[in-house]
Amino acid sequence: MSGALFLEDLAVGRRFESRAQRIEADEVRDFAGRYDPQIFHLDPKAAQETLFGGLAASGWHTAAFTMRLLVESVPIEGGIIGAGNTIEWPRPTRPGDMLRVVSEVIEATQSASRPDRGRIVLRSETINQDDDVVQILTARLVVRRRPAEN
Amino acid sequence: MSGALFLEDLAVGRRFESRAQRIEADEVRDFAGRYDPQIFHLDPKAAQETLFGGLAASGWHTAAFTMRLLVESVPIEGGIIGAGNTIEWPRPTRPGDMLRVVSEVIEATQSASRPDRGRIVLRSETINQDDDVVQILTARLVVRRRPAEN
Repeated sequence: MSGALFLEDLAVGRRFESRAQRIEADEVRDFAGRYDPQIFHLDPKAAQETLFGGLAASGWHTAAFTMRLLVESVPIEGGIIGAGNTIEWPRPTRPGDMLRVVSEVIEATQSASRPDRGRIVLRSETINQDDDVVQILTARLVVRRRPAEN
Repeated sequence: MSGALFLEDLAVGRRFESRAQRIEADEVRDFAGRYDPQIFHLDPKAAQETLFGGLAASGWHTAAFTMRLLVESVPIEGGIIGAGNTIEWPRPTRPGDMLRVVSEVIEATQSASRPDRGRIVLRSETINQDDDVVQILTARLVVRRRPAEN
């Protein structure tokens, strides 16, 4: 993967920003129907009576949608491989929202036992067209060290 | 929602088990193509050279698939509404795996400020046909108290 990033490239404070993409209403409904069939994701009228106060995307849809934008915007050598995550949804994602993902390296550590790799912690905010944060993902990622030149 | 559970029903130690469902190879490929287009989710041959040692489902696919089984197996009044989660994938999910979800209430707290609601922490293991745990989800959920009878 040419131009992809190794541990040495991923210093604390390095930031990445994705393009913005619209999460379409029919995609929200399709995802919820398959994976999260609850009324606040499927039925606009009934959703008004719930804690969401209207139709909202499944949090897992926001997470999956974020992943696509992360894969495009954070070109880590070997790919984005998560070992563990925390994920919060401070506000709902609404059908039709334009989402973008802003990521920052907040920790970077060489492995003590494996000289060829390390870990970073990447904090990614998913942000809508009103600059509201709809998701905060904090992901521990396995990353490779740059191979020594021979 | 008749028979659905309130805070009072969700004591620490209460357990739930879902049915088992197969995660089909074409669904793994379709989900990855949309949301997580990395070679270890899409290309069986190339996947063998990666950390996964073969084709694996996207972790976000395992999460979404788990949610469907959770919605069916944990009938909380008002639905399953996550405020925050930690999620780990100790092993990969493989195309064709039979997955089930075993959940346990590990905390339950009345809200100090809102007498009509509380929070629980639900720990859900997603388990394959070999009894390997492929995902551990720890979710903080908002739940309602049972309304007083008049």
